Amino acid sequence: MHITLCGTGSALPQRRLTSAEIDHRLNRPEGWLEAACGVQSRYEVAPGEDQITLAVTAARQALADAGIAAAELSLVIGASAVPYQPLPATAPLLAGALGAGEGQLAAFDVNSSCLSFVTGFEVASRMLGEGQYGLIVSSELASRALPWAEAPEVAGLFGDGAGALVLRGGGSGRLAAALLRSYPSGWQACSIGSGGTRYDFHNAPQDFAQNAIFRMDGRELFRLTARHFAGFVKDLLARAGWSHGPDLVIPHQASPGGLAHMIRLTGFAPERVVNVAADYGNQIAASIPLVLDLARREGRVSPGTKVLILGTSAGVSFGGLALEI
Amino acid sequence: MHITLCGTGSALPQRRLTSAEIDHRLNRPEGWLEAACGVQSRYEVAPGEDQITLAVTAARQALADAGIAAAELSLVIGASAVPYQPLPATAPLLAGALGAGEGQLAAFDVNSSCLSFVTGFEVASRMLGEGQYGLIVSSELASRALPWAEAPEVAGLFGDGAGALVLRGGGSGRLAAALLRSYPSGWQACSIGSGGTRYDFHNAPQDFAQNAIFRMDGRELFRLTARHFAGFVKDLLARAGWSHGPDLVIPHQASPGGLAHMIRLTGFAPERVVNVAADYGNQIAASIPLVLDLARREGRVSPGTKVLILGTSAGVSFGGLALEI
Repeated sequence: MHITLCGTGSALPQRRLTSAEIDHRLNRPEGWLEAACGVQSRYEVAPGEDQITLAVTAARQALADAGIAAAELSLVIGASAVPYQPLPATAPLLAGALGAGEGQLAAFDVNSSCLSFVTGFEVASRMLGEGQYGLIVSSELASRALPWAEAPEVAGLFGDGAGALVLRGGGSGRLAAALLRSYPSGWQACSIGSGGTRYDFHNAPQDFAQNAIFRMDGRELFRLTARHFAGFVKDLLARAGWSHGPDLVIPHQASPGGLAHMIRLTGFAPERVVNVAADYGNQIAASIPLVLDLARREGRVSPGTKVLILGTSAGVSFGGLALEI
Repeated sequence: MHITLCGTGSALPQRRLTSAEIDHRLNRPEGWLEAACGVQSRYEVAPGEDQITLAVTAARQALADAGIAAAELSLVIGASAVPYQPLPATAPLLAGALGAGEGQLAAFDVNSSCLSFVTGFEVASRMLGEGQYGLIVSSELASRALPWAEAPEVAGLFGDGAGALVLRGGGSGRLAAALLRSYPSGWQACSIGSGGTRYDFHNAPQDFAQNAIFRMDGRELFRLTARHFAGFVKDLLARAGWSHGPDLVIPHQASPGGLAHMIRLTGFAPERVVNVAADYGNQIAASIPLVLDLARREGRVSPGTKVLILGTSAGVSFGGLALEI
């Protein structure tokens, strides 16, 4: 299906937090956290910054890069794993903050956890008519619920940030294939329990408090990925019908160890895989669009480039896009 | 676009709660709540029931009605306004609970608040290939966050419940038009503030607690609806190209007063509009699929019927589907 990437943008909090700083905070020897999780630094919001300010900064960059105004958008998709509020959806708030007019566009959220941007891209590609513009924004504050006390080597994996992209229906670009596949047996492997209906804040406050933190079972994720991910990628590439492999692979930055595992499983040449997990951490759904923006700014994505976007997410799901720019 | 409705299902909590019972609980004269909000009864979950049990019951009914097994699904869309957990998305949990196999389908959530089912229907219609089956499930526990102390006449409007639908790509049915339009100026008019990233449960617990309740500015919703809704419906019907009006209108059951207002604004004959808001209350995104299931069981939806699905949601958004069964 023809769909053209017109602009990208990204945003980081002002505060960069190194693993060495966290070692001091946790009373650990310097070098401990980086050795435990592989991440050297990540970004963390301070007062005055939030999920919306990051989203709006990234989205404005993407609109400027595309050379269009918010009023020209037909569609805004909020594609974050964790929303700003439980109600309403986040997308209409973003549309308003960007200056989109009243009654001019459709604004809704999609959620496939860390793969929300991938799902948002596929949905936008199927909804946008010829010449219509759509914006997809992922913005995440991982720092709101990290298990620094109970599992610092897990908490150290994550960072805050946002990424955005403007698409135009039709044109010379092409989504050669899109695939999402879910493995429900892993639903418990990565989770934040409290914030939806599961734990009742008003009537069961202790249960709510005990589950208001991110938890991860890395072995279960490793097991599902080791067993199924290479086959998933093979299926995606077969659907794309590419005679040669991708020019560039943009993976979700799950973790430095997870990325190394993915590279081994799929056999892609490491120099074709963008790997910045050690510098930014896992920014949940924002990782993929932020990395896509970085790669474009480095001149690695130009007309004709075959880009393979790939990732794993809580759910557990695998997802990918085979994109001809 | 050709898409065929194959099955519907719905679920209610066992406990029916009348407005008269609530009058006693609130020390008000009998008849006060019903006069204040127009709702006579709604359903409310008790221990042992939750968002997932309701969703699974409704989804199993829809699968049985369609005569297919969960293993035959290519797609499961979770289409609730408020999720079960902030992470992961709810759809993979539902897929697993229904018995869908590992790696056999795509499972993700969409969210346009009360219109999530409408968005899920449109997205599924665009994603399902010829002969592929998709399931859309909306399940809501409004009772988790109702303002019984500060605004009982608002709290009384809502109820818990679930609705589900099975679609098959292609076939004799047709989605003649789908439209979603957002009015970001109304984003504050209906909201639950706490549960996402906006209020920090760990570092600002008082702010979190103060905003962990549903709030609604009915006047702002009335203003936007009065100004724009009739034009929205006209646009949707023009896109559908129907020479006669719909045979049946299935509106979101926002409130008895809101439904009466919508009927006046659009001019549809009241006997063609399904109105059960007084019996069930507003079940957020679950209202539309639950009402669609009720109407089918009453024999009001059969091959050839032109069904207009319509609603307003927090966001604020207006949405609709013009559906030829």
